[in-house]
Amino acid sequence: MSIFNAQATASIQICRIMRPDDANIVGNVHGGTILKMIEEAGCIIGTRHCNTQNGDRCVAALARVERTDFLHPVFIGEVAHVSAEITYTSKHSVEVQVNVLSENIVTGAKKLTNKATLWYVPLSLQNVAKIIEVPLIEYSSPEQEEAGKKRYEAQKLERIETKVRNGEIIMSVSLPDRQTKEPYTVAFSQSSLIHLIGPSDCTLHGFVHGGVTMKLMDEVAGIVAARHCKTNIVTASVDAINFHRKIKKGCVITVSGRMTFTSNKSIEIEVFVDADPLVEAEKGKYRAVTAFFTCISLDKENKPLLVPPLKLEGEEEQKQFEEGKARYLQKKAKRLADKECQQ
Amino acid sequence: MSIFNAQATASIQICRIMRPDDANIVGNVHGGTILKMIEEAGCIIGTRHCNTQNGDRCVAALARVERTDFLHPVFIGEVAHVSAEITYTSKHSVEVQVNVLSENIVTGAKKLTNKATLWYVPLSLQNVAKIIEVPLIEYSSPEQEEAGKKRYEAQKLERIETKVRNGEIIMSVSLPDRQTKEPYTVAFSQSSLIHLIGPSDCTLHGFVHGGVTMKLMDEVAGIVAARHCKTNIVTASVDAINFHRKIKKGCVITVSGRMTFTSNKSIEIEVFVDADPLVEAEKGKYRAVTAFFTCISLDKENKPLLVPPLKLEGEEEQKQFEEGKARYLQKKAKRLADKECQQ
Amino acid sequence: MSIFNAQATASIQICRIMRPDDANIVGNVHGGTILKMIEEAGCIIGTRHCNTQNGDRCVAALARVERTDFLHPVFIGEVAHVSAEITYTSKHSVEVQVNVLSENIVTGAKKLTNKATLWYVPLSLQNVAKIIEVPLIEYSSPEQEEAGKKRYEAQKLERIETKVRNGEIIMSVSLPDRQTKEPYTVAFSQSSLIHLIGPSDCTLHGFVHGGVTMKLMDEVAGIVAARHCKTNIVTASVDAINFHRKIKKGCVITVSGRMTFTSNKSIEIEVFVDADPLVEAEKGKYRAVTAFFTCISLDKENKPLLVPPLKLEGEEEQKQFEEGKARYLQKKAKRLADKECQQ
Repeated sequence: MSIFNAQATASIQICRIMRPDDANIVGNVHGGTILKMIEEAGCIIGTRHCNTQNGDRCVAALARVERTDFLHPVFIGEVAHVSAEITYTSKHSVEVQVNVLSENIVTGAKKLTNKATLWYVPLSLQNVAKIIEVPLIEYSSPEQEEAGKKRYEAQKLERIETKVRNGEIIMSVSLPDRQTKEPYTVAFSQSSLIHLIGPSDCTLHGFVHGGVTMKLMDEVAGIVAARHCKTNIVTASVDAINFHRKIKKGCVITVSGRMTFTSNKSIEIEVFVDADPLVEAEKGKYRAVTAFFTCISLDKENKPLLVPPLKLEGEEEQKQFEEGKARYLQKKAKRLADKECQQ
Repeated sequence: MSIFNAQATASIQICRIMRPDDANIVGNVHGGTILKMIEEAGCIIGTRHCNTQNGDRCVAALARVERTDFLHPVFIGEVAHVSAEITYTSKHSVEVQVNVLSENIVTGAKKLTNKATLWYVPLSLQNVAKIIEVPLIEYSSPEQEEAGKKRYEAQKLERIETKVRNGEIIMSVSLPDRQTKEPYTVAFSQSSLIHLIGPSDCTLHGFVHGGVTMKLMDEVAGIVAARHCKTNIVTASVDAINFHRKIKKGCVITVSGRMTFTSNKSIEIEVFVDADPLVEAEKGKYRAVTAFFTCISLDKENKPLLVPPLKLEGEEEQKQFEEGKARYLQKKAKRLADKECQQ
Repeated sequence: MSIFNAQATASIQICRIMRPDDANIVGNVHGGTILKMIEEAGCIIGTRHCNTQNGDRCVAALARVERTDFLHPVFIGEVAHVSAEITYTSKHSVEVQVNVLSENIVTGAKKLTNKATLWYVPLSLQNVAKIIEVPLIEYSSPEQEEAGKKRYEAQKLERIETKVRNGEIIMSVSLPDRQTKEPYTVAFSQSSLIHLIGPSDCTLHGFVHGGVTMKLMDEVAGIVAARHCKTNIVTASVDAINFHRKIKKGCVITVSGRMTFTSNKSIEIEVFVDADPLVEAEKGKYRAVTAFFTCISLDKENKPLLVPPLKLEGEEEQKQFEEGKARYLQKKAKRLADKECQQ
């Protein structure tokens, strides 16, 4: 069948119309909705690819998402097209690159809204602790393979680093009575939600889809930013996210966010996901994921507004602000460098 | 047409198949799923009735739900039948009585799982602050009307009382690092979720359906109880809930729960709903709803388990425990009295 | 109990309020939302009926939906009432007739929006490959039984025919870069979506509900038509759909649509559903369902607009257009004949 030609397992397209529940009150589609679609495409193509050989059946589990920018807002009624292809395979992991286009099917206007890179690891359906060997893909040139290998090595290094860093952080995110807090402080806007992992949130393994987690993280980031700015908020970018520990069906997850940095027109929010396997007393709560979301505040014409500066309280918040600033400047420098490259 | 016979505006039936997403991990349908269906039926019949006359069009808004018991667990794959009828009307409110039957369409078994009484107030579509006059219904006997009037007066009194009480309570529900808390204390199990009110949560007025709020309240109660017991939890009953203040689309609501009382086989949880109109700076957060949920803990054969006793810390918790105990004993006495009446 | 009277197993009513997510951006409820409700009602009544005897327990699986027209648009906030009854039984199949009424609970207006006929086959819960014998129903007259038998024979014949035709078609639906395509061609508007079958999409057997499939098919048809017309699109009718092959939980389905015919005021779209059991290497992708949807394009007063004619490319498209025209003329003739009968 021509749908599954030579490249059959190597590419896929998902699309659907954006509905009111996918968007905020002024009609901007949540970044989390897009992240969830991206991850669904990646999961499908990764799972399909890793089952093209004989042996154990498996499901591709999300291990990492590289930093991604939201280039344009998407609106209710538009069609979001998510196209994914496998761009690199190592022995135990699959790199998927995803492009998202929004299409206004009434005017015909199309925009590239996202580019994302995801890493998946195939876990055996028989034994979720067992990682399957990944069938290799062919590359169009040795340079292409070499570039993929570099990306693979770079992300591997970063994943190991964050694993260590995660171990160190033991941070409590409290939800104090907000009315006693001063506006524009970290404590004033910080927010948490809890969610019980249901069957539709999970893969065939009974572990939560990475996309479900990212959607909830984006929701919290948006609420934190809206509490600070009291305006319409959209997600501008998400830093690389590593999924170190799986979350099982029936767990309660607490997703907490707090502001770390503000520039003139952007807000950085650190988001934490803690999993609590309610009924398995022995295990206890654990930190599953952390990430930095960057949001911007928009006026009625979707133009960026000035952000009220963050009021810092104490040394810890000062330190985090400085780190946020460093990330901000680094990204800015990278953006400029990329622009120059393109010229 | 046979659907709309003489009793057209006075009764309605809703039913649907219970899906995995309606239930917890062992297949028991959430009490909140049932409460949401009950309220949808009430809203339909109340709105329909209050628009049977000329003049302003309106939507029936939930003002109060009387205490309701969940008599039997409902399971995935069963059909829940919700039938509602209008049983009393005052000048500005409508009483709706609802029965819920679960039907196992494979075995044919049917069970009465709930009886509930809801009070609605018709709000003008032109001006949501304006209450419309309710068309009167006919009663089959003067005794029936008299009994309805008594129910009306009784609930009116209670609503005024809780309004006063609510005004007094300004309680903060903090989410401290749970790992530092001792198991079986109130602080150990208390939980909060936040939810952004989306378009599908709302009536034509753009205010949240009471059923959506109750579903989230039930979800929090279930998580609190599961954190305490580490077992399968089902909702056994909900005390009367008064909806004093409306919640608008775009608000963030924080739904918080904490244990107040344990008997041998039941847990009482107080649940609070606070609304935060994110983008309307002037208004500030307000308490919209509070209620007591009673949960039980089930073993694998759906038999009730013993509940670990609550460890109280401080006078305030002691006081709340005593009040919970009084409610528990009162309900127990009422159940016995009802049983005797039936014999 | 009054819900389950003598006719208990022979009729059922489902209703619910239409929400923003059930509708397109201008508030018209999707035909797919209605089709899903219709199928849920049919599944409940069919399953209930086929379990009224001793022996194997079973679930009624959708085998076929007869051609159905959408007579009036339904809007957000209205209540859709779906009433179903069993009208014929053969040894191994059940015919269910369904009426859909929309009720504006604010104005009191009611409209008949659909009539549909569905055929179900009871599959054993022990062994999904085994078809159970259907308990016979009683008919009010021999004529009624005779008419049912005729409908049964007619649909049986058609089902066998389409089975053969389905086998022949090997059609690729590609999603080329739309920007390179000329407007108003088939290639310009053709669209695909993919969906991962989750637990809440499935019956107790773990196979997808026919209604879930039809809802996705309707969504694709709507996207194709909107791409062609660039206006507000509603579904006007759906030709008979045969469900030849079951689709299992965990499969990925690709739903593709392309235009086949345009009249002055209508668009015919052929929709294909291909199932891909991701993790079962041996099986391979297969065509599960195909159907023709007819859509119309509406202006702001919900009046039909002229449709831009389809630009045909190549003999195959010409042939399909001619076949579409034949179906169109046949339906038109039938409508006229029905009208004359009624006079």
